Amino acid sequence: MFIIKIGGGKGINLKGVISDLATLNEKFIIVHGANALRDELADKIGFHKKVVTSLSGYDSVLSDETTIDLMMMTYAGLKNKRIVELCQQNGINAIGLSGLDGKVIQGKRNSGIKVREGGKTLLLRDFSGKPKSINRDLLILLLENGYSPVLSVPLIDENNFAINSENDDIVALLQSEFQAEKIVSLIEEPGFLLDKNDPSSLIANISKAELETMEQKVDGRMKRKILALRKLFESGDTTVILSDGRTEHPVMDALNGKGTIIK
Amino acid sequence: MFIIKIGGGKGINLKGVISDLATLNEKFIIVHGANALRDELADKIGFHKKVVTSLSGYDSVLSDETTIDLMMMTYAGLKNKRIVELCQQNGINAIGLSGLDGKVIQGKRNSGIKVREGGKTLLLRDFSGKPKSINRDLLILLLENGYSPVLSVPLIDENNFAINSENDDIVALLQSEFQAEKIVSLIEEPGFLLDKNDPSSLIANISKAELETMEQKVDGRMKRKILALRKLFESGDTTVILSDGRTEHPVMDALNGKGTIIK
Repeated sequence: MFIIKIGGGKGINLKGVISDLATLNEKFIIVHGANALRDELADKIGFHKKVVTSLSGYDSVLSDETTIDLMMMTYAGLKNKRIVELCQQNGINAIGLSGLDGKVIQGKRNSGIKVREGGKTLLLRDFSGKPKSINRDLLILLLENGYSPVLSVPLIDENNFAINSENDDIVALLQSEFQAEKIVSLIEEPGFLLDKNDPSSLIANISKAELETMEQKVDGRMKRKILALRKLFESGDTTVILSDGRTEHPVMDALNGKGTIIK
Repeated sequence: MFIIKIGGGKGINLKGVISDLATLNEKFIIVHGANALRDELADKIGFHKKVVTSLSGYDSVLSDETTIDLMMMTYAGLKNKRIVELCQQNGINAIGLSGLDGKVIQGKRNSGIKVREGGKTLLLRDFSGKPKSINRDLLILLLENGYSPVLSVPLIDENNFAINSENDDIVALLQSEFQAEKIVSLIEEPGFLLDKNDPSSLIANISKAELETMEQKVDGRMKRKILALRKLFESGDTTVILSDGRTEHPVMDALNGKGTIIK
């Protein structure tokens, strides 16, 4: 069994990804994004992200009810069902699930962001959180009966409300439950780039130990990326392949060693 | 096991419906609409239905790719997931599926509409069709493992493309597979009205035989409604309850004999 994370960018060659998956003789779980679709729909309906600044000075995007509506429409709706359709066209009997369905991904809602408004300190609580547990029985039931799960946000929180979460955290949790031999993460870059503007700065191989060293040297976006990668190794050994989702055969390329291999 | 069809109008009291269902000690399958949500989103993004007139003089709405996108967003996405969320909040472990997921509702695509355009006769083939078979094994697997299926369009056609279809036809097909003891259909009317503008024209009881007689006397919208109801009896005896989805306890009211009972 392996886990495949499909980035939500516009450039990902979904047809290529799914037809590649169909040629493999292995069970897998897909986790996909849909940020490009969501942003596009938000633009069309004139919805603007609400960004707040916490007391400690960090900017956060608030996941309000409309944010979750948009997520249901684009992640769990349009993108998930088009991926399932592609799977079916390639002979993969896929079932698309949000975290709410069968409580397949349960999370804990964030406690809130302290903000200063009109001279007062307020606690803003939005619909966001972190994945905490997986309905493993349901995923096994589906896999054993020949179905391929295609998972997306939103998750379900401790009070059964839909919440937003990071796909990286979902993949890490799945990994801790299933100890997949490999995790393929398809992005809109050739792999792990030291300089995001320079494709030739691709690192072909990184060890777990090197990840730790690197993490201490960088910050911002790069630090977050490395942290997300490191989480994948917390529950045991695996091979993570970070690879380009825009090529003709993204999964084949990843399995053939293009991109960045981390183990 | 019973089947509950939830209309896609804005007025349906979804909270009431789901909390009612939670008090029942019976398995069920939900089939829901989302036409109000879809029309609202279509308006917001400035999408206009394409209506064509066939050679034989009938107007049809074309289900093009954008129509299916909208359906995935509003039926399989927003509405389906909000219903699943409500179910979970009421202790019902629901799993929302479109017909594509696990090929749970397979259909046959319509052959096309003949239209006259620029002096030529064209065959316009859209993404619409009729449900033909159910993945009964999947539904049984879910029901036997304690999950309640929440079904919506689109379906999957014979070439694994997403297609639009009528919920009435889906319910009739489910009924032919499961021979449910009862079918509850929640609408934005008190039940079956002889005069759609007069709530007091509600018919409390209709027999199958009366339906046939009525069908011959009416036309248009009423004829289509009766035809849809008659289909539910094609595969054996059942009780169909057509009832108001806008009350405080829509399901309880239906089961307590409000609305129209057909058997």
